Amino acid sequence: MHGLLTDFYELTMAQGFFLSGKASSVAYFDMYFRDIPDKAGYAIMAGVEQLMEYLENLRFTDADIEFLRSKKMFCEEFLEYLRNFKFTCDVWAIPEGTPIFPNEPIVTVRGNLIEAQLIETMLLITINYQSLIATKASRIVRAANGRDVIEFGARRAQGTSAALHGARAAFIGGAAGTSCTLAEKEFSIPAMGTMGHSWVQSFDCEYEAFLQFAKLYPTNCTLLVDTYNVLKSGVPNAIRVFDEVLKPLGITTGGIRVDSGDIAYLSQKARKMLDAAGWHDIKIVASNSLDEYIIRDLLTQDAKVDIFGVGERLITSKSYPVFGGVYKLAATCENGEIIPKIKVSENPAKITTPYFKKVYRLFSNDDHMAIADVLTAYDEDIDESDEYEIFDPVHTWKRKKISNFVAKPLQTQIFKNGKKCYESPNIHEIQRYCKESLNQIWDEIKRFENPQEYYVDLSQRLWDIKYDLLSPD
Amino acid sequence: MHGLLTDFYELTMAQGFFLSGKASSVAYFDMYFRDIPDKAGYAIMAGVEQLMEYLENLRFTDADIEFLRSKKMFCEEFLEYLRNFKFTCDVWAIPEGTPIFPNEPIVTVRGNLIEAQLIETMLLITINYQSLIATKASRIVRAANGRDVIEFGARRAQGTSAALHGARAAFIGGAAGTSCTLAEKEFSIPAMGTMGHSWVQSFDCEYEAFLQFAKLYPTNCTLLVDTYNVLKSGVPNAIRVFDEVLKPLGITTGGIRVDSGDIAYLSQKARKMLDAAGWHDIKIVASNSLDEYIIRDLLTQDAKVDIFGVGERLITSKSYPVFGGVYKLAATCENGEIIPKIKVSENPAKITTPYFKKVYRLFSNDDHMAIADVLTAYDEDIDESDEYEIFDPVHTWKRKKISNFVAKPLQTQIFKNGKKCYESPNIHEIQRYCKESLNQIWDEIKRFENPQEYYVDLSQRLWDIKYDLLSPD
Repeated sequence: MHGLLTDFYELTMAQGFFLSGKASSVAYFDMYFRDIPDKAGYAIMAGVEQLMEYLENLRFTDADIEFLRSKKMFCEEFLEYLRNFKFTCDVWAIPEGTPIFPNEPIVTVRGNLIEAQLIETMLLITINYQSLIATKASRIVRAANGRDVIEFGARRAQGTSAALHGARAAFIGGAAGTSCTLAEKEFSIPAMGTMGHSWVQSFDCEYEAFLQFAKLYPTNCTLLVDTYNVLKSGVPNAIRVFDEVLKPLGITTGGIRVDSGDIAYLSQKARKMLDAAGWHDIKIVASNSLDEYIIRDLLTQDAKVDIFGVGERLITSKSYPVFGGVYKLAATCENGEIIPKIKVSENPAKITTPYFKKVYRLFSNDDHMAIADVLTAYDEDIDESDEYEIFDPVHTWKRKKISNFVAKPLQTQIFKNGKKCYESPNIHEIQRYCKESLNQIWDEIKRFENPQEYYVDLSQRLWDIKYDLLSPD
Repeated sequence: MHGLLTDFYELTMAQGFFLSGKASSVAYFDMYFRDIPDKAGYAIMAGVEQLMEYLENLRFTDADIEFLRSKKMFCEEFLEYLRNFKFTCDVWAIPEGTPIFPNEPIVTVRGNLIEAQLIETMLLITINYQSLIATKASRIVRAANGRDVIEFGARRAQGTSAALHGARAAFIGGAAGTSCTLAEKEFSIPAMGTMGHSWVQSFDCEYEAFLQFAKLYPTNCTLLVDTYNVLKSGVPNAIRVFDEVLKPLGITTGGIRVDSGDIAYLSQKARKMLDAAGWHDIKIVASNSLDEYIIRDLLTQDAKVDIFGVGERLITSKSYPVFGGVYKLAATCENGEIIPKIKVSENPAKITTPYFKKVYRLFSNDDHMAIADVLTAYDEDIDESDEYEIFDPVHTWKRKKISNFVAKPLQTQIFKNGKKCYESPNIHEIQRYCKESLNQIWDEIKRFENPQEYYVDLSQRLWDIKYDLLSPD
């Protein structure tokens, strides 16, 4: 599955490793990211379940091999290797729904260099996109301040897999549902919807359209009121139909949706009209290019919106549509010894942190809030019984001693010798875990604008390994 | 295929039409867009081939039906209808690679209301995403001013279908190739690549890494020179390896790639070093978060770059990642008569243009340049032998008489009674057609910033139909 959905250089490098005596070399790769979209203070991990599916099913078909042969760049020995390809590496990942921060390994791969190289592109596609959308959804849900957010964006998604997996990631980040039917079938994410303008237009008048819909779906009756004029036509017709169809059935719930115009003004007026008619439990759904900034502003202006339908700005993370995860060699293994490997760069931000590592999140025992993440060598423990000094890896004079804490390793092993060794929780558990984990992050970090930077530090030993490589003399 | 990759409301509306006596109603829908990404002056149509595939293969499987039954919102008659679903509509589309403009129907669907409604979500996903990327690629290729642009973005694509179809759309817009291997297998788009930092890191030193690569791929030898230090280490090692491996083989071509640091400065210095060593035909490839604005600036500063590798900012259209195509009911058919349907709105930009329409592009016979697009009723001809007056549909006093022109219908029929009746040209033909079509658009329209607005006007008859519906009294 998806064997050739990979950058071509993964294949030429893989053959290169194969032919230059590195066919059995062992390597350590980390996936990490440098910046959080929207200059936010935290991101949300997502996509691990799909990564596992990919790794379990990675094969090269006969047609793939035939295609590669036609490129006349691959030798028969290497093509034979691909035909028999089997993934045998160890993989660790931070579980989905966890708040994650720049420069910490969110996925680590250990094993055969060729295999670890070949999976780069799909590993990045899978984790980057879902983490992007889970992060954006988390921000939007926070802005909605307890109101439901429904992911509505399929039609503006960047392709079919974005529509489907974007709905999944949005749910992890806290969305209450999606418009995407397939996402319910595949992932049990509640699919929901109202009606389109075409419904209203296809009847002789708006009242007739509402009447038919209410008769068909009396318990799911959300009417789109902006096809002609929200306050003069849409809301009055909706109320008339609620009175005529829902009231005799004893139904008090339902909704109206506004998809254009000034949401603050229209929702306040509509609320008054509904309340005056006795329809206090009818919910107002708003849509139309919403995101966390607009929702925050609308609520500041006391918009009477109960449910936000969020489309293109969520499913594409429109204000910052890239999650910049990278996948870098951190170490090799020679004669049983782990050799740290670094990539220097003219841009200091592009310098990697070498070695086989572990990530700990330190929580205070007083309030259970997260204090910092610390990257250590793979075999380092953090002694919780003693004071522990963390320090900024760039401005090393910035130091802080902490005590009375627990240090929880963030990564979980998901593959062992190429075999899956982790079961993904169901999507509702992931959503709940995400919410609970975010509660342990200080509000300062979660601010929309200009958030405080969360500490991601290196242990002294790991720092020494890195700076020894940077200044070898 | 993808039967349930649809907004849930398409299904509830479809059942609604089914149950309210509209099962055999005929409708006309248009897909069009209101704004061009990046405030550009033109967009490029793409995605028609994938839309045809979808329409040809649209089915609901037993598992789909079973899932829908479990929602307890659908009656058995409608589920039986879906089980036997067959697409029978007529579809017209503007061919891929054509420059397109706001408010003109780029896809038109005529036929059974339920079918035409059900395809909305996938139709929009398919055309929106590929048109977004073809448009962005066209801008980036124009900025590169004759230099090759390679699409490098798979790892930052919004999911797997974006990686694959984004590569396709980028090629339509003028990219010379892609990093995505599968895109070559599926669409014959040349896949290419260099090497990653992991290649260099996995050897004991940079020289050794370059040496091995050159020996393996002497005729495809592009070396990544920024793992440690471009000018002190990368370029000198590359030259040494070109001298030792390529020169004895009589090979004069190859490349170096710079992926960090100041591209303008580094490329100039590297060019001088390569030239001084006699390697005039070695090409310099630049990557690292490039887009049309940065490429234009780099070339203004005389960067010595021969090939641009463009990643995340192309594959996501990062500066504006949404192509806002919508799909709206334009007419219904009652007793053989076409009834125009309009959606009004508090936002004038969201008012639709009703009726079954045709789009003409008018070209001057003097210089063969495009003058304007004109939307007419479906049965209107434009008389090329006479003077023709076009006018702005909002500021109707803005009028222009044109003569000595040809009027070319832009849409082609792609489905007739549900059967495909159009063969997609191959991707190279589409790319060539795109380039030629763009040559017929004035430079003023193609400016990056603040472009002149291309005329998209209505015929007098169509204008009358629209404004009669807006002011019925």
